[in-house]
Amino acid sequence: MERHRALFEKAKDACRERFCWSPFPETPAQYPDHEKADALGRAAFERHCGRLFQMSDDAGGGKQAGIASEEVSPYTQKPLGTSYVHPQIDTVFTDAKQAVRSWSQATPRERIGVLLEVVDRIYREHLFEIAHAVMHTAGQSYNMAYAGSGVNALDRAIEALVYADQATSSIATSATWERKFGKTTISLQKTYRLIPRGVAVCFTCATFATWNAWPSMMASLATGNAVIVKPHPTAVLPMAISVRVFRQVLQQFGFDPNLVGMVLDSTTEPVGKILVKHPDTSIVDFTGSVKFGQWVEANAHPAICFTETAGCNTVVLESADDLEAAIRSLATTLCMFSAQMCTSPQNIYIPAAGVKTPQGMVSFDNVAERLAAAVDAIGAEPKKASMILAAIQSPATLAQMKQLREEVGDQGTVLLEPRSYAHPEYPGARTSTPMMLKVKAGAGDWYRGERFGPISFVIECRDASDALSNASSDVARHGGLTAFLYSSDEAFIARAESAYARAGAQLTINLTGPMPLNFAAAYSDYHVTGLNAAGNASLTDLSFVASRFRITQSRRPSTV
Amino acid sequence: MERHRALFEKAKDACRERFCWSPFPETPAQYPDHEKADALGRAAFERHCGRLFQMSDDAGGGKQAGIASEEVSPYTQKPLGTSYVHPQIDTVFTDAKQAVRSWSQATPRERIGVLLEVVDRIYREHLFEIAHAVMHTAGQSYNMAYAGSGVNALDRAIEALVYADQATSSIATSATWERKFGKTTISLQKTYRLIPRGVAVCFTCATFATWNAWPSMMASLATGNAVIVKPHPTAVLPMAISVRVFRQVLQQFGFDPNLVGMVLDSTTEPVGKILVKHPDTSIVDFTGSVKFGQWVEANAHPAICFTETAGCNTVVLESADDLEAAIRSLATTLCMFSAQMCTSPQNIYIPAAGVKTPQGMVSFDNVAERLAAAVDAIGAEPKKASMILAAIQSPATLAQMKQLREEVGDQGTVLLEPRSYAHPEYPGARTSTPMMLKVKAGAGDWYRGERFGPISFVIECRDASDALSNASSDVARHGGLTAFLYSSDEAFIARAESAYARAGAQLTINLTGPMPLNFAAAYSDYHVTGLNAAGNASLTDLSFVASRFRITQSRRPSTV
Repeated sequence: MERHRALFEKAKDACRERFCWSPFPETPAQYPDHEKADALGRAAFERHCGRLFQMSDDAGGGKQAGIASEEVSPYTQKPLGTSYVHPQIDTVFTDAKQAVRSWSQATPRERIGVLLEVVDRIYREHLFEIAHAVMHTAGQSYNMAYAGSGVNALDRAIEALVYADQATSSIATSATWERKFGKTTISLQKTYRLIPRGVAVCFTCATFATWNAWPSMMASLATGNAVIVKPHPTAVLPMAISVRVFRQVLQQFGFDPNLVGMVLDSTTEPVGKILVKHPDTSIVDFTGSVKFGQWVEANAHPAICFTETAGCNTVVLESADDLEAAIRSLATTLCMFSAQMCTSPQNIYIPAAGVKTPQGMVSFDNVAERLAAAVDAIGAEPKKASMILAAIQSPATLAQMKQLREEVGDQGTVLLEPRSYAHPEYPGARTSTPMMLKVKAGAGDWYRGERFGPISFVIECRDASDALSNASSDVARHGGLTAFLYSSDEAFIARAESAYARAGAQLTINLTGPMPLNFAAAYSDYHVTGLNAAGNASLTDLSFVASRFRITQSRRPSTV
Repeated sequence: MERHRALFEKAKDACRERFCWSPFPETPAQYPDHEKADALGRAAFERHCGRLFQMSDDAGGGKQAGIASEEVSPYTQKPLGTSYVHPQIDTVFTDAKQAVRSWSQATPRERIGVLLEVVDRIYREHLFEIAHAVMHTAGQSYNMAYAGSGVNALDRAIEALVYADQATSSIATSATWERKFGKTTISLQKTYRLIPRGVAVCFTCATFATWNAWPSMMASLATGNAVIVKPHPTAVLPMAISVRVFRQVLQQFGFDPNLVGMVLDSTTEPVGKILVKHPDTSIVDFTGSVKFGQWVEANAHPAICFTETAGCNTVVLESADDLEAAIRSLATTLCMFSAQMCTSPQNIYIPAAGVKTPQGMVSFDNVAERLAAAVDAIGAEPKKASMILAAIQSPATLAQMKQLREEVGDQGTVLLEPRSYAHPEYPGARTSTPMMLKVKAGAGDWYRGERFGPISFVIECRDASDALSNASSDVARHGGLTAFLYSSDEAFIARAESAYARAGAQLTINLTGPMPLNFAAAYSDYHVTGLNAAGNASLTDLSFVASRFRITQSRRPSTV
């Protein structure tokens, strides 16, 4: 802990005051000796391909049988060929429970010290290896894999440790208590222990595994629990590398590496329900589909669960001082990682009469067309497209767009047809420019709910009030993490702030310029409110950690 | 808040350091102008009997129809005759939701200030009225009704406010965030709001309504939620008086009194499940039976729930420096309020070879008989019995003892036959001295699980290890809040501390003297661990409040 004290104190300040901070360089180019680090990371990633992944140095790999994973690079569209040992589920639980014994006896500060060492180890030795693994499983761009799946996710991990510290450090470990009963003074010595719940199961998603996984793992581990990771079968490697680092650092500090384990499954034989209902599961962290997320929420009991699923993130365009700048920002954000982020906007609500600007009203159709043109322009430049759109993680996303195209009928019109763009570095990459549809507010059944991937709906509403009430009530009912508003009317902004606060989406107002609208800053932005169907928790706040452990006590007469 | 600042700061210190403190006098005799206060309280209680309870001053009672409650005084065994208006459930929810709007816009500090005023109002104006209402619904003794259901419960209420303050005060309400993206500096002004979950339903129990109800209500209200109280149909009046005080104080401070409402039911037509599954229920606080508590835990979703039910609290007698003193303390605690407390011991595990003392081994049978004799002696003195045993809340408890008597067969032997004792003040009181049974550890199906009321089992175990492992595993499996150990063997004590910490019972070791063994001190003892079937929450810790509200945010470019 001593080694990391200054960093941790600064992180605590940042969480308290919510200013902009990170101990890490924001872009790969700023990383110390970047070219060498990248080359090493890439080589390490390539070594994993076509091989059995060794979870431990001493596993004696030759004797173990691996099962090839379903991982296919969205860039090469070829299987990674990495195989993994599939351990018995019960064995992993038994080992994890055993490992909790000594881990739970370390103080929270000791545990946090070890976990900060994990953060440091990932940053110094595995960041680029993980970034390349993320690129070739999720399809993220290199920069996003470094930042969003790398340093920002590490920031989130530290943030979770800050809250774990806050939840545990306020609890006295002992007390002397003295009171008179009649004429006798009773003096008791009391000791308090923090008892972990037990074993946490952490489900990670296909497109952004580390972002939620690392903070969730940290929250469980810092409070004394074991963690079993269940990665999405098409994005195992980034988590396998992570789990291996946790295990190595734990072992180095004299703890049982089985505290962090991994269980694998396949799309044809999923084990998710088995894990959630396993008698030894005490905590479930889930990131993934709405459907399974809702099942987890309803069925996790007696385990507690923390979920992040998806929703339809909304945009309301009422008026704009600089409409062109707003359209540019929206277009970039609609394209960012082909909208395969849980924070990507999907539904854009615009009054039928158009958008007010200092130059007068701009018609609904004009706004829609300019937005489509700005999105199209990004897709038309392969280099830019490769940086922003990157690749499509799953063929199912392309299939959904195709199906949606067939369904259009008279429910709306196609504003922008999706097409593949030629990736400059990977000619065989699975890519698609965004699909945009124009609909009336009445076609809600069609656009409510998440359409995963680069699909958006420009929705014609009666007026600004109707746009806001449709947008915020869709969020309240169908879920939503982020929301975006353009308005120069302060009264309307205030109404929107209240409406979205009730609906439970984090609102960004009138933002233009180079920052992606959906950028979520660690230590400053709360990710997910827990107030609607898009998730029941927030990464990261105090309630994300406070119930992962319990307090027991023992009291006895003081010895004089 | 200003008026209560010094008290609240002291309460925060006490929670942090867990020393003995209370702003209130411990016994009725120490209450300022006690006789007058008691007379006024008694008169106020008597005025409620045989009358329609007016929840509001301006309710225009004449027009309302009341339904007589099922409340029967355990002391007179006559109905109280109080009737209550049974409002429409949907109306109470609609009113509560409406009331949340303005309440949630107050700052947490403002809310806590108002709620400390409620505490003060109850203490200064309604304490004895509530104490008499508790006596004549729960059957508690006068002193216990004053302390346990009065000032100690108020202490717990303050404690909940301390944790609500801790959970909310660490959250920034605004921040300035600034970062470069490329060459452009983006500066955002962020605001954070605390959003309550909505409406909390608070189920209160028959024997100790205020003890859990007040802290639960405070936890929900301080974090911005509304509360609907659902009292046990045989113990409505203490909660009705409480709810009325909350409403009066809220109204006085300009808030909507409907923020705190009450819904009634009857044993033949319970509404518990309707309330838990009501679409507007966001939080459930439940104190009551294991059976319904387990249903609540499994079915509350999407509401979050906090439960305290029951378990079999255990005693392990391994060795004792002063066995006589241990037996005296155990006997008193077994008799305290006829063991109708969730913290009362029930199962006493003793090695077959007996208990080690400095004077040599004392045989199992001798210990069992001396314990029974000490319990019997309390019942034999009517004045003492009335102070300690008090009255039996429900006829069902007597019926259960009768049935148990019939079941004994060869599963065990009766160590102490229960009998009624003559209450010196209320000759018609429903009373019973305790029933004690002697069994072998093998008869676990019989003694595991709560036998509510003055029933205890002295259990013969193979040896000390067997006693501890039986006791702690019974707790882990069947629930338990408290545990008691007598041992002069430090190694055995350390094992017991670990075993009970894992099982999740709060352990008291080698305590003798005038303090009831199961006395739980506010600000110092954590009540319930949440680790076993006896409840999923602790009253009160940070996790009891931290998830009752969520955080939303709004961000926009800073204006220069």
